[in-house]
Amino acid sequence: MNLLINGKQTDQLSVLDRGIQYGDGLFETIAVIDGRLSLWERHVQRLLSGCKRLGITAPEPAGLLAEAEALISHQQRAVLKIVVTRGIGGRGYRPSKDLQPSRVLYCTPWPDYPEECRKKGILMRLCATGLGINPALAQLKHLNRLEQVVARSEWSDPAIFEGLMLDSDGRVIEGTMSNLFLIKKGLLITPDLQRCGVAGVMRGLIIELAAKLNIPVLIESVSLDDVKSADALFISNSLIGILPVKAFSSQSYCLELIPPELVRAVDRVMSGGS
Amino acid sequence: MNLLINGKQTDQLSVLDRGIQYGDGLFETIAVIDGRLSLWERHVQRLLSGCKRLGITAPEPAGLLAEAEALISHQQRAVLKIVVTRGIGGRGYRPSKDLQPSRVLYCTPWPDYPEECRKKGILMRLCATGLGINPALAQLKHLNRLEQVVARSEWSDPAIFEGLMLDSDGRVIEGTMSNLFLIKKGLLITPDLQRCGVAGVMRGLIIELAAKLNIPVLIESVSLDDVKSADALFISNSLIGILPVKAFSSQSYCLELIPPELVRAVDRVMSGGS
Repeated sequence: MNLLINGKQTDQLSVLDRGIQYGDGLFETIAVIDGRLSLWERHVQRLLSGCKRLGITAPEPAGLLAEAEALISHQQRAVLKIVVTRGIGGRGYRPSKDLQPSRVLYCTPWPDYPEECRKKGILMRLCATGLGINPALAQLKHLNRLEQVVARSEWSDPAIFEGLMLDSDGRVIEGTMSNLFLIKKGLLITPDLQRCGVAGVMRGLIIELAAKLNIPVLIESVSLDDVKSADALFISNSLIGILPVKAFSSQSYCLELIPPELVRAVDRVMSGGS
Repeated sequence: MNLLINGKQTDQLSVLDRGIQYGDGLFETIAVIDGRLSLWERHVQRLLSGCKRLGITAPEPAGLLAEAEALISHQQRAVLKIVVTRGIGGRGYRPSKDLQPSRVLYCTPWPDYPEECRKKGILMRLCATGLGINPALAQLKHLNRLEQVVARSEWSDPAIFEGLMLDSDGRVIEGTMSNLFLIKKGLLITPDLQRCGVAGVMRGLIIELAAKLNIPVLIESVSLDDVKSADALFISNSLIGILPVKAFSSQSYCLELIPPELVRAVDRVMSGGS
């Protein structure tokens, strides 16, 4: 595996880095499709805005792109992960000002999601592990991901692709590694993430494309009843794009009600089209 | 600084370790007092029970102690930090079974807490950043500490020693790096941590010692009004022991109402007495 840490070929980081000590950092998971970095601009924008919110010195976008392209130069289909931490320093939790952030880039093989998932839909379960509510961290793709680790440890059945997570008030938020969309009477609905959850790059793209395609979108509080009574469901992330949900718990859904023009538009933009 | 990672003198850890990727691990912060590891048994017990809850293979206590003693062998007063991560492996958030955990031990200098803090008490403020509620992670001293990092970044005035954190429902939970105790009409009260917060080793010791000293202890839901109307307040952690709070926001407290026999008992046990 090719790995770059602050521009050097190594996989070793100091354990004094705040990324390890506190999870004090952010990450991006980027699809490499036909040798190209899918949705690069969106990923970089999210990374920069996350750095700004956490007060982490952001990497310089042009240099980051050069490193990313060097890393994926022999890859047709792969995953590029970027991790940016606040770096080493500070007394306890309080970070010092102007720390030198750590910048980690590495490529992993494309995950072998079964092709039939896209056609037949996936199975989703309800996770017992929930998401803590914290507006200060909501929407960020930060490195504090124990909730997802514990939630994803709840099941081992490979037939179940994803688990749905609720916040501590019982609102529906997202999957362990994906965002959620509902189709209800022709409306596209996705949970509001003001209080917790990760604002996925793919989620943002889908919202924009739907609005352009004249599919009305609502971002709002979603209950389990809303999910169960939806006409169709799908999940999204930067690797899978859109994956229809065949069944959640005992509820089945109608795959055909997911607008095919939206799926095609997402596929096109993921692959570098406009 | 002396550092041991899995028994080797190095400060370098693979960035593929789940400790970095997800904060998938635990830590302990142990006082070294007069060359001895203060409250060692309690720290190890908490570490082991945390590993059990998260399904992380726990380090072997005797080997851990040998490494810890080797590291602190030339130290009279210092801080030993132990980090245990789940190790490298797993597809995404889901950990593989039987991973090889990473074990990190290192010594840092004793922090220069002003001596007068113990006599005159500390100033505490209210943090705007709160704690997400998640019973699955409550009480654990895990590596997901961004809430504390953001909360501790709220102020830079060195006169303010600690910040009080509320959960997302507005209940009082703890300080950014300490647990909280209230004295009210002779009762010792500390917030319930079933839903969030870190179950400090020092907090556990204080609860036990108070009960032995005939000081009635209550572990219960605490509101901001409870804090403001308390007769006395103190904070605790493994390094500071007990520190009285002189003032929280605009409210002042009576330091004399903190039972001196409790403070003496804590000091004695911290230093290796019984």
